[in-house]
Order: sequence, then C-alpha cells, then structure tokens
Amino acid sequence: MKKIEIYDTTLRDGAQGEGVSFSLQDKLAITERLDEIGVDYIEGGYPASNEKDSEYFRRVQEMDLKNIKVCAFGMTRRKGMTADEDPGMNALLDSGAPVVTIVGKTHDFHVTDVLRVSLEENLAMIADSIGIMVEKGREAIYDAEHFFDGWKANPDYAAQTIRTAAKAGARMVVLCDTNGGSLPEEIASLTRAAIEALEPFGVPVGIHTHNDGDLAVANALSAVDAGAQQIQGTINGFGERCGNADLISCVANLALKKKGYEVLGGDGLNHLTELSRFVYDTANVNRRNNQAFVGQSAFAHKGGMHVHAVNRASSSYEHISPELVGNERRVLVSELSGRSNIMALTTKMNIEQDRKVMDEILARVVDLENKGFQFEAAEASFELLVRKTLGTFTPHFKTMKYHVEVEDFVHQQDMELTTEATIKLQVGDQLRHEVGEGDGPIDALSTALRKALDGVFPNLKRMKLVDYKVRVVNSEAGTAARTRVQIECSDESDVWGTIGVSENVIQASWNALVDAVEYKLHKDEAASKQGTPDEVAAAN
Amino acid sequence: MKKIEIYDTTLRDGAQGEGVSFSLQDKLAITERLDEIGVDYIEGGYPASNEKDSEYFRRVQEMDLKNIKVCAFGMTRRKGMTADEDPGMNALLDSGAPVVTIVGKTHDFHVTDVLRVSLEENLAMIADSIGIMVEKGREAIYDAEHFFDGWKANPDYAAQTIRTAAKAGARMVVLCDTNGGSLPEEIASLTRAAIEALEPFGVPVGIHTHNDGDLAVANALSAVDAGAQQIQGTINGFGERCGNADLISCVANLALKKKGYEVLGGDGLNHLTELSRFVYDTANVNRRNNQAFVGQSAFAHKGGMHVHAVNRASSSYEHISPELVGNERRVLVSELSGRSNIMALTTKMNIEQDRKVMDEILARVVDLENKGFQFEAAEASFELLVRKTLGTFTPHFKTMKYHVEVEDFVHQQDMELTTEATIKLQVGDQLRHEVGEGDGPIDALSTALRKALDGVFPNLKRMKLVDYKVRVVNSEAGTAARTRVQIECSDESDVWGTIGVSENVIQASWNALVDAVEYKLHKDEAASKQGTPDEVAAAN
Repeated sequence: MKKIEIYDTTLRDGAQGEGVSFSLQDKLAITERLDEIGVDYIEGGYPASNEKDSEYFRRVQEMDLKNIKVCAFGMTRRKGMTADEDPGMNALLDSGAPVVTIVGKTHDFHVTDVLRVSLEENLAMIADSIGIMVEKGREAIYDAEHFFDGWKANPDYAAQTIRTAAKAGARMVVLCDTNGGSLPEEIASLTRAAIEALEPFGVPVGIHTHNDGDLAVANALSAVDAGAQQIQGTINGFGERCGNADLISCVANLALKKKGYEVLGGDGLNHLTELSRFVYDTANVNRRNNQAFVGQSAFAHKGGMHVHAVNRASSSYEHISPELVGNERRVLVSELSGRSNIMALTTKMNIEQDRKVMDEILARVVDLENKGFQFEAAEASFELLVRKTLGTFTPHFKTMKYHVEVEDFVHQQDMELTTEATIKLQVGDQLRHEVGEGDGPIDALSTALRKALDGVFPNLKRMKLVDYKVRVVNSEAGTAARTRVQIECSDESDVWGTIGVSENVIQASWNALVDAVEYKLHKDEAASKQGTPDEVAAAN
Repeated sequence: MKKIEIYDTTLRDGAQGEGVSFSLQDKLAITERLDEIGVDYIEGGYPASNEKDSEYFRRVQEMDLKNIKVCAFGMTRRKGMTADEDPGMNALLDSGAPVVTIVGKTHDFHVTDVLRVSLEENLAMIADSIGIMVEKGREAIYDAEHFFDGWKANPDYAAQTIRTAAKAGARMVVLCDTNGGSLPEEIASLTRAAIEALEPFGVPVGIHTHNDGDLAVANALSAVDAGAQQIQGTINGFGERCGNADLISCVANLALKKKGYEVLGGDGLNHLTELSRFVYDTANVNRRNNQAFVGQSAFAHKGGMHVHAVNRASSSYEHISPELVGNERRVLVSELSGRSNIMALTTKMNIEQDRKVMDEILARVVDLENKGFQFEAAEASFELLVRKTLGTFTPHFKTMKYHVEVEDFVHQQDMELTTEATIKLQVGDQLRHEVGEGDGPIDALSTALRKALDGVFPNLKRMKLVDYKVRVVNSEAGTAARTRVQIECSDESDVWGTIGVSENVIQASWNALVDAVEYKLHKDEAASKQGTPDEVAAAN
C-alpha cells in the first residue's frame, strides 16, 4: 500500500471562491476537524496578506493537534532583494508554522511578462526562498505554478525551476494546473516527466488541480497513478472560478475504488459526509445536494423503477454502500415516484399500506408539487400530510388569526424599527390571544406562538429554529409569484424540515412554522408511548 | 475530424434529479433550444410512464425542428409475452418518435435477481424489442444498462447481450455506467472490449455515464478516446443522485481541448452559457456559480494578485477565452481583493481612481462584508456605494417611514388574507404618503413605492422585479440572525442586482428595493447625458 498525502487548502485557495469567507474562529474549527479526520497538511493562510491570517498562525499554535501539519503559504521573494530582507519571507518565518509552502513561476512567459524578471533571477528567487526556509528549520514544499502550461511551452526551463527547488531543499514539488485547463492524459505524461527530472534529487511530486475543465478529480487521480504522492485540494471543491479538486471525492476514490493506496488512516473515511456539511455550514455556503459521495441526493432514489430495484439489490443504483462515507440512502417523494416510493417512505411510519390510501397520498403529493411544494427537504410536512390523509392527525391547536406589523421610522432616532405579531389560537377549549415582538416578522410570530403554547406543551421549549430559507418558485412574475419557505428545526435528538408555499411570504412562513410545531408535538407523543429514547436505549 | 454525436437526456434522465421537474411547455422549449444549438438527439421521455410524456411526443411532431432527432425511451418487453402484445412497446410505437431507445439488462445478476427472468429470456427480450422497432421503421438505439459492472462480473454474458442487440438491428449500442461507479481506465478498457465484440456487426458504441464518483465527464471523454461515437448526458449534469455527465463540459472539452473531434457544428459552442442558464431557469433550479465553462464564477477573479496577472496575461488564470463558450470575465469585490479589484471594477464607471478614494471604498466594502453583505451578485449596490464614497450620489428620494401589515383571518371565508404597505417619502420638496396592497409584503411595498414615484420618474414603469432571494447569514441563531436579501431587476436593456442586510427581512428588502430604484434612476440619467443607446449605436 502506497501512502498518498492529503494536503488541504480550503482555508487559503478555498477562501478565494466566490461567496466563501471564513472568520478566524471558522478557520480554527476547520483545522480541528481536518486533524480529527486524519488529513496530513493544512494550509492555514497567507500570513503576509492580512491580520486575520497572522492571528490564525498565533492561535493555531495553542491548539492540541494530533497529526496535521500546519503550513503557511507565500510567494518566492521579491526581485532585487535578499530573502532575509523580504517582508513576505519574514511573515512566513514569523508565522511560526512548521511547514512553509512557496509558490514560484514555472512558465517562462509568466516570468518575463507577468512577473517581469529575467529567467535567471526567477531561478535565484526560487533557490533563495526555499533555501531560507530550510536553513531556518522549516519543512519546505514548493508549488510549481502553471507547471503543465509551462512545461508545454518550454520543458527545459520548467524542469530547471523544479530542479532548483529540489536542490535548495524542498521536501516535495507540487505540480500545479493553475488555470485548470489540462486533460488527464496530459497530467499523466507530464507528471511522469517531472518525476524523472527530479529523480537525481530524490524529491517526490504532488499534484494541485483546478476544476475549470470539470476534470479536477480525474486529473488528481491521473497524477497519482503516474506517481504523485500528495494531493492538494479543498473540502467540497471550494476555490476560485470553478474550484479546486474536491478532496472528499479524491479521498473516497482512492480509498474505495483505486487499488493499492493508503489515505487518511483511521476511520476518517466514515466521517466524510459530516466533514463536508460542517465545512458548508461553517462557510455559510449552500450545500450541493448532488455532490458525489456526500451530497444529500448522492444515494437518493426518485424513479419508482429504481426504488424497486434498490430494494432488491442495492448495487443496482448505488456504486458504494453509503455508510462507508457516512452518508445514507434516501427515498424521495415526487410526481415521478409512483407507489413504491410512497411505500418506502411510509414504511418507517408504521402505518397500514393500503393500496387505495397510497394512491390518495400520491395524488395529494402530485397536486401540491404542482403548486410549488417540494417535500424532499420537508419530510416532517410529508409525514403530517400522510397522517392527514389517513385521518390520524389531530391538530394540537387551530389558528384563528395572525397579524404582523413592521414599522420603520427611518428618520427618527429613538424609535426606529418595530416588529409586532399578534395571534389568536384555539387550544383545546381555550382561546389564546397573544402578542410578540421580534427581530423580524417570523421571529415575532414564533415568539407569540411560543407564548400561546409553551405553558400547555412545555417540551416546545427545547425546540429551536435552525434555518430559514425563501425561494421564489416562479420568478417570472417577480414578487407576485409563489414563495416557498423551508424551515429547519431541531431539538436535543432530531432535526426536521417543513415547508410552506404561498404568494405571501408571511403566510408561507406561518404554515411552515405551524407544521414544525405540530410535528414536534406528534413526535414527542409517539416517543412517550414507546418510552423515552433513553428508556429505549436502556432496554436494548 | 471524427464526428461525436451528442445525445441529450435532460428531459428523461435529467428529470429524475432531485428538485427537477419540467412542464410540457418546458420540455418543448428545451427541445427547440437544443435543436438550435446543434444537438444530435433528444430523449423526450418515457411514453409509457405518464400523460405528460405522451402529450410531448404528440406536440413535438408539430414543431419545425432543423436537425435534432427526437427519441422515445423504454425498457425491453416484459417477460412472457410477445413484443407486439407489450403495452410499453406499443406506447413507444404510438409515440411516433423516429428514434426509439431501448434499455436492457447486461449484468447476469440483475437479470436473474432483480428482473427475475432466465438469462436466455433476457436475450430474447432484447432481440424482440429491438427487432420490432426496426421492423416498424424506427431507428433503434440500445442502452446496455450496468454494462461495466456486468462485464466485470460475466464478460461472456455481457458480450452476448450487446451482440444480440446489434444483430437485431440496433444502430448504436450505448454502454451505461448506471450506478456511476467506474473509473476512467476501466471505462477505456471495457469500451475497447465492447467495440471488439461488436466488430462483426459494424455497430458503433456510445457512452452514458453518471457522476457518483465525480468522474462522469472524464469517463465520457475516456470512452470517446477509446472509440465511442456518441455521448449521452444532460445539460448542467442534471440527473438522479449525483447527476449525469454534463454535456456542456463534454462538448466544450471535445471542441476546445481534445484534438480531432467534431461536435455540434455551426456556432453552437458560443451559446453554451446561454443554453445552460436557460435550462436552469426553465427547471427553476439555482444556477451553480462555479460550474465549469459556463458558471457565473468560471472566469471570475477575486484574489488581488490574480486580477493583476489576468490583466497582464489572460491565460494566467483563464484556461480558455470566456467568449468561446459565450461566458464573460468578471472581477469580484471582496475582502481578499485589494485595490487592484476595486480599480478594475471602477474603471467601467469612469471615475477618477485616486489611491486614497480606492482605500476608502475598500474599507467600506470590508466593513459591510463583515456585516453579511456580499457584493458579488449586487453590482448595482456596489456602484451606489462607490458614488456615495465619492460624494457624487444624490438620492432621488428620502424614506421617512414605511409600514407593512399582514393579517390572515384563517377561519373567515370572505376576508382572508390582506397585505398592506404605507410609505412616506420626501421627493424633492414634496412629501408623498402612499398606500399599496400586494400578494406579499415586498409586493405591497413595491406597489406603494411605484405610486409615489412613477409620476415623477416615468421611466420606472419599465423596471421589473425579476428575482428575490433570502438567506439567513448566520443560521446558528435561527430567525434572530441577520437576513440577506438579494433582488434582481431588469428593464428593456439591463439586469442589475442589489442587496440589503438586516435582522429584519422587511428592512433588508426595503433597502435592496431602494437601491434598485436609485440605480435605475442614476443609470438612465447617465445614459441620457451620453445619448440614448440607439443614438449611441447610430453614431458609431
């Protein structure tokens, strides 16, 4: 088994992605997770670029990390000065990072026309920059920028640049497909060429790819097959333009598909799904449902025919067992689904699967989907719909009225913005009329709802609203179009999604909120009939 | 140059994707677009499955299509009946489609354990199903389901199935990696094996891949290099689980990167970006900004260093010229960006690029980004921010107050839901106090705003609100967190984005709406100073 090192640059190259930015706390939290999962290197940032990155390197030294090596990233020294005069070099040394990754130019045209130095000066810049790091006791990694384009344009010069880095003491030379435009077969043949050029120095190569040709993962794997020993990439493929190679896919392919490679170690592989979602949530980026291996849809089955086949033989439509990467199989509700999907979903609910009832549920789902509902992320609303169809749903309260008011006196200092909601509910034989304030209309409605119900149902106190999303269903008509609101709630043991659709965002939100509360109340009643989760665990 | 056929299954396999569904009108509109762009085949649906698909095949015959061939999709005949008795076969024939694509089983285990027929009966089912289509004058394409897994398990039987299809008259045998789990090197070697097995019949092979291993595009290209003559896939890689091979990436790689292949023909390539976005919008699926070739971020530059380099040599960070696929270069505003990004953006605005002013703009951007703003999709708000910093912004109106009220008498039939907004604005020396109703709070605010301003600024009548998106910026705190509202507006010549951030969704929406109106008014004033667009065009 050949060990392939995983080098993560989510915090540096990943943070260059559109819509991605990390706070200092985010960066530290991600570092901790990557260490736990067994990643070999983490590139923490570019200490010369800003205060946040410098602070990261101070704080990370106080952390109790197991295996991961923290790297600081920087460019070769500037032209016309010695390495020890260069502020960038000094920022790298001052960062205290045990590993320093230096990026330098490989492509002759970039040296002369972008950087505007002579070809010789560029070689000196590489040698000096790697040299000073090795001299000061750092592990030095050399990133050969534009390696593949550079080699195609001038193979002799490209070879000289990486040999220079190797000779100066770089532990690893990483071949970068900086603009992401190479094909797997080019990556393979030039990786072999680089390995040959570095043979006299005994320095191995790594690979750093981008996804501009939709081939980043294939390119990284192709380099590994050609002999590369390190993959640089990011979690979820974050990164500028089309992103970097997604380390999740690289790791899963190496561990589960390719033969003869060792990667991560321990049970890191089984936590890839968790890691992927943690990084999305930390970056506050929407998850990509169809992401390979770890996406919410990666093992989701919609077509009735497929669901049928998966039940007979899971390999039919699942290339691996979802548990291997910490993911799970899901069966979706949809107009294409037919009875077999509805059956699979309702199996979990312990209800009688009468054919007529299944047809009735399917018809209601199809009707609601035509109105803009999507139950795929709103399984709690789906479960309530099933109970309503079966006649086993008893509402805990009835809405008589709700009213929301937002007023903003923009030009009066002392009383600027007020948000107030009033609601009138029937709870049992009582009428409850409550008022609440909040930061926004949904918060105010939720406050009033809690005031009306918490006394009667104290378990609601442990329910939290964790996410709120709005999407216009048919954007052609602008604000007059239908609005789909998705809410995610949690308590100590579960997370559940509900949905509301209306032309009015307030009405859609109210409906989703009511479903979330009703689901929580039904769920807890069902659990108390079966004993509490702790009692059940103790009994098993 | 070797012609590679492009076979699109967006309407069938793509519609199996989570969150994807097409109306009949959507399907017809997509068919027309794919024809215009030069796609060779379109799989319109599964006529036996539902009424919408049957209606599609009726309606598509009335269209005036140039090149594209419409295919109906179905499975081999059922066991224990002749092909002409089988309702599925008859639905395919009745569809009137000139091409029929039949999917059949290749993997012995699936034949015996999922389909539950004998290996011989499966061969007869393939032969009969292809046979009847050819007999009735249809072009038959055979999709060999689970080809790669099937061949690995039992190469003799797998070869028999595809030989049977070829002998029965299939024009093409398409090798399907149904569960998406194969690696490019496996695809290459088994594609060569299939070509060899079919040599005596002179029948070529095609390739159908899925993205479960994040390798769908690489796998399709690998098959083409091994001799496959057709690629089946979907626009934007729609499809169940992790999706199908993205035809956009396949086409762009074949046309721009690989040597010796001919694809699409005409200037289809230059319209890929337009096509991609059209399909997203038609399916009402969010675009993927970092999508290869056609994503909004595919040629976007954020890091200050990169922007600098792109200005000197575009190939530095652009693997192709964005115009080749109908895309464009963008420069993003961000905390990582530094002065060179701000410079690039403000260049378009014809303002003096004083160093001090640039630093001031950058500082304001960084401050707002820390509060949850993102200017990447809100260039209109960014432009207003620049003008405010420069002191060249004169507001057209001042908000004194706005008030929104939503009331829902859930249990009273005649007066259910009302939404009312009142606003008080100062416009010049006049105070305007207006009230508006709407389908929701934003619509009501927008109505009141138009009432107050349309008389004074008649050009606002041509402004439309085209999209409205809400995202919780920090979802930890639930509804009490900050809310980011992004609005997209258009008039006859432009589309512009604005942003508002607040704890209160109504306040965030109001701020974004005010920016959208101010931008429109400033833009039109600037244009009228330079002459109308028509006058400018006439003068050049």
